[in-house]
Amino acid sequence: MDFQPILDEINDELRPRLGQVGGKVASYIPALARVSPQQFGIALRTCAGDTAAAGDAAVPFSIQSMSKVFSLTLAIRSLDEALWDRIGREPSGSAFNSLVQLESERGIPRNPFINAGAIAVADRLVSLGDAKAELLAMLARLCGEPIPIDAEVARSEADTGFRNTALANFMKGFDTLDNDVAEVLDVYFNQCALSMTCEQVACAAGYLCRDGRHPLAGTPVLSPAQARRVNALMLTCGTYDAAGEFAFRIGLPCKSGVGGGIMAVVPDRLTLCVWSPALDPTGNSLLGRQALELFVAKTGLSVF
Amino acid sequence: MDFQPILDEINDELRPRLGQVGGKVASYIPALARVSPQQFGIALRTCAGDTAAAGDAAVPFSIQSMSKVFSLTLAIRSLDEALWDRIGREPSGSAFNSLVQLESERGIPRNPFINAGAIAVADRLVSLGDAKAELLAMLARLCGEPIPIDAEVARSEADTGFRNTALANFMKGFDTLDNDVAEVLDVYFNQCALSMTCEQVACAAGYLCRDGRHPLAGTPVLSPAQARRVNALMLTCGTYDAAGEFAFRIGLPCKSGVGGGIMAVVPDRLTLCVWSPALDPTGNSLLGRQALELFVAKTGLSVF
Amino acid sequence: MDFQPILDEINDELRPRLGQVGGKVASYIPALARVSPQQFGIALRTCAGDTAAAGDAAVPFSIQSMSKVFSLTLAIRSLDEALWDRIGREPSGSAFNSLVQLESERGIPRNPFINAGAIAVADRLVSLGDAKAELLAMLARLCGEPIPIDAEVARSEADTGFRNTALANFMKGFDTLDNDVAEVLDVYFNQCALSMTCEQVACAAGYLCRDGRHPLAGTPVLSPAQARRVNALMLTCGTYDAAGEFAFRIGLPCKSGVGGGIMAVVPDRLTLCVWSPALDPTGNSLLGRQALELFVAKTGLSVF
Amino acid sequence: MDFQPILDEINDELRPRLGQVGGKVASYIPALARVSPQQFGIALRTCAGDTAAAGDAAVPFSIQSMSKVFSLTLAIRSLDEALWDRIGREPSGSAFNSLVQLESERGIPRNPFINAGAIAVADRLVSLGDAKAELLAMLARLCGEPIPIDAEVARSEADTGFRNTALANFMKGFDTLDNDVAEVLDVYFNQCALSMTCEQVACAAGYLCRDGRHPLAGTPVLSPAQARRVNALMLTCGTYDAAGEFAFRIGLPCKSGVGGGIMAVVPDRLTLCVWSPALDPTGNSLLGRQALELFVAKTGLSVF
Repeated sequence: MDFQPILDEINDELRPRLGQVGGKVASYIPALARVSPQQFGIALRTCAGDTAAAGDAAVPFSIQSMSKVFSLTLAIRSLDEALWDRIGREPSGSAFNSLVQLESERGIPRNPFINAGAIAVADRLVSLGDAKAELLAMLARLCGEPIPIDAEVARSEADTGFRNTALANFMKGFDTLDNDVAEVLDVYFNQCALSMTCEQVACAAGYLCRDGRHPLAGTPVLSPAQARRVNALMLTCGTYDAAGEFAFRIGLPCKSGVGGGIMAVVPDRLTLCVWSPALDPTGNSLLGRQALELFVAKTGLSVF
Repeated sequence: MDFQPILDEINDELRPRLGQVGGKVASYIPALARVSPQQFGIALRTCAGDTAAAGDAAVPFSIQSMSKVFSLTLAIRSLDEALWDRIGREPSGSAFNSLVQLESERGIPRNPFINAGAIAVADRLVSLGDAKAELLAMLARLCGEPIPIDAEVARSEADTGFRNTALANFMKGFDTLDNDVAEVLDVYFNQCALSMTCEQVACAAGYLCRDGRHPLAGTPVLSPAQARRVNALMLTCGTYDAAGEFAFRIGLPCKSGVGGGIMAVVPDRLTLCVWSPALDPTGNSLLGRQALELFVAKTGLSVF
Repeated sequence: MDFQPILDEINDELRPRLGQVGGKVASYIPALARVSPQQFGIALRTCAGDTAAAGDAAVPFSIQSMSKVFSLTLAIRSLDEALWDRIGREPSGSAFNSLVQLESERGIPRNPFINAGAIAVADRLVSLGDAKAELLAMLARLCGEPIPIDAEVARSEADTGFRNTALANFMKGFDTLDNDVAEVLDVYFNQCALSMTCEQVACAAGYLCRDGRHPLAGTPVLSPAQARRVNALMLTCGTYDAAGEFAFRIGLPCKSGVGGGIMAVVPDRLTLCVWSPALDPTGNSLLGRQALELFVAKTGLSVF
Repeated sequence: MDFQPILDEINDELRPRLGQVGGKVASYIPALARVSPQQFGIALRTCAGDTAAAGDAAVPFSIQSMSKVFSLTLAIRSLDEALWDRIGREPSGSAFNSLVQLESERGIPRNPFINAGAIAVADRLVSLGDAKAELLAMLARLCGEPIPIDAEVARSEADTGFRNTALANFMKGFDTLDNDVAEVLDVYFNQCALSMTCEQVACAAGYLCRDGRHPLAGTPVLSPAQARRVNALMLTCGTYDAAGEFAFRIGLPCKSGVGGGIMAVVPDRLTLCVWSPALDPTGNSLLGRQALELFVAKTGLSVF
């Protein structure tokens, strides 16, 4: 299948909707609130190494929660099954429930993609070594080039991250974090501030459509079973409270971020990244979601 | 792939665990509590029409919540998107939440596979005609033979179904059921009491791996998009609170019932049904789950 | 203290507000929705037997949840401490929680004044004999005259009481109701449909300010400790989610009903009943509440 | 009434139960865990200024949550009704709900006696000036002598107060705290570490039984209405999840602390303080509660 014309069509179809649709750019951090919503990019990379891209696919954006896939990957590499001692693997049911469930489930987050879960993953990484450096090193290897952290975004996250500070202290109170709260949050806030382009994300996530093998080198990043499990978690928990809806309408493992990016995996075929900053009420990129629906409709690709 | 030896291996491997494992037969109805846990069956049917079976694959059992796939199919055929006006498509997060969520979400069940959702589907079917007769007719067409309702089980469900009666009245109080509570529950209790064998279920569910086409006749049961969406719902919501775990370990759309059956779909390949009455704490068949894990490990089949 | 002029003042002060204020008559039953909001009555009876009344104090109205005080009294008389095996004594925290808590607390209602608790009390009364007849007999003795049940209201409650039917079936599912759901609900729906005047309620509740002694005969209705405990329950749980606010602003044990009545107790002094059909958003009579605030301000009476 | 013999009787009756009963000393802070459970004290002070005391009534203990009454008093003095803009006045329903409710009620604590509420009160006090100094000054005036803060307890609270840090950050995230989280928590942790004797507490709380007038000087600490309202809040919310039970069995406004103290008010008569470090499962002093039940039974004093 030649994907470039398909991405061009999607770009042509969606670009006129920029600024018309009702989405809103994430505003909890000044550095994010300043991003122009008038941007849309899409890029993919097949298992064979072919690439296609359209629109603002080379513009860097804040990957935010998409980073949870990479930190999870790093933790699974070192801990495999032991990672799951203090993190669950079930959908959380509701945005509001994250704290509710954390209370009734005594500090064990539902899954690694809600904030509490990603903070718990960061805690494990801190126990294993220099988490920030390890993450940057893994991403550099996956992309073939260094990935920067946006220092202003990281600082803003820290300055305004009261809810995440609450979550981390809450878990610490249940004794389910091993390390100092501030140190764990520093890793978490920095990973959220990673700045990548659609092309880089599509490349970096490539191991997820290749049974865990490195997109460029072919060496194992994860085992085949581990890669399948990350995909399963993305499908059931990767898009906040819209995971059921994404599975229903798009049918691909996806992970979104409030920066407006969404990565998607077509197992054994390709990885894809879309980006457009304006978000729908579930916190997922409004045009990004439409782009994925169009992609699935045009290609017939779906895991189901 | 020749599946018969694989099913034989699974049967050989699991049969010795019957009676040793810690599961418990559903006991809330005498007719279910009497079923011997010493049974295990597995059957599959490929898209090409090949079949394989092992163990107690020809023994009829109470399909219970597996019936929700068939009633949902019937409702989607008639209503398509309109079905979703009063039923959601998101995982419910927790067994305990079903009623909690029904309250906070004002009588709109989270998805069609929790009890409240299946009762809401039954209400739609009652509005459309003789729901029980339609369901029996559809199943007879799908299996090529009539499917019986176990009258004793249906009666027991009605006599002890206080929780389901509560759910139905609760929705009626929110004005999200159109029909008489007793009439809706009669459909629901009867569909739960359908009695089928693994072989029959594997055949009947065949449209789910064939883009919606009838397993025998090839005529459309659902559109390709509708079939994919049923699979998506099964993967995200089909196995109670273990949906995330099933996706993680098995990676196939599954729907279980407290009678001990689990149906699974490998899109474009085959449908599968396993049955063993003893349940794990999440209400899913203990050996059935192990059988599916073995099947996936031996065949490498998974949607991810 | 001469109370008649005080009640007259309150009546004079509040009557002009009838129809101006923003309250709404309960509308879930036609027979209640038809009641004119242009009514206000107030009556009291002292421990010494003196009475005072103003406004529509002799107009009968549907006492609804105020009946829970009388059914509780009947149950305590027979069961004393044993009553509390399956009913709690704590405030429920939130209207929405009633079902939520019933689920997490496995069918044990928080207190006898939420609907689930009053249904549980009715279940105990059904086990003890002809609950409806006993309740009518007790009220006739307390008032010195027979008290009617409004048959239309009772029938409407039964026809539209889906939420209460849900609660009763839910408890039955937890095995915390002993009797047939329909029989228990019949008692409950009938007690809610009792029709009394402010004067009758002020007289009937008289034992609550007299250490449990009958307002007319002086014979024990409850023991002194039991009477104090009913007052305590009224103060902490008697006015739905506004119990804290009533304690804070009025400082008297009160029990309200959606018919617009509120009974209040000044221990060792008097019992009081106000009535005005329009309700505030918490389900308590809007003018009734203002009347009680005025009464407390003018008399300085409060338990605190 | 001569109270000294009554307190002596209570002391004689309860002292043999020390060490036999099943309670447990609060263990979340080393300095509290070290306190010997073999202690029991009781002291009261009447409106007329008479005092009585028995047992370890002169031994200082950590007043913990009892301090919430004094910080609330200080805030009401300055802000009166404006205090309630961001703090509710309803019972919270359940210990577990504190965070749950804070989430669904968007950072507005249910009442000033749950931790979140007391932290919100501390935030108001920080906005008004040097909160710690003001609190110490007010207590010194109320007791006629300076009251110390146990520095080790305060430090331990800060070192292990992850849950309270979570609550404060959570509210800050909802924008319902005005001041720096660390500064607010410093006030809160210090007020919890106040060290007082039963005799001092009985004296200091004296304004609550005197329509708000200073126990020694007679000058107004609170207005009569304000004092009544503090009593109302103590009765409905002062003893964690046992508030209904306290109202039911004891019938007096009470405020407990995990240091094992409970203060109680008999309006227009006296204030009382009991102390015994071992706690029951609701976090209230086990013997303290029994002492209050005995006191009420022996004196007949109750607000109901």
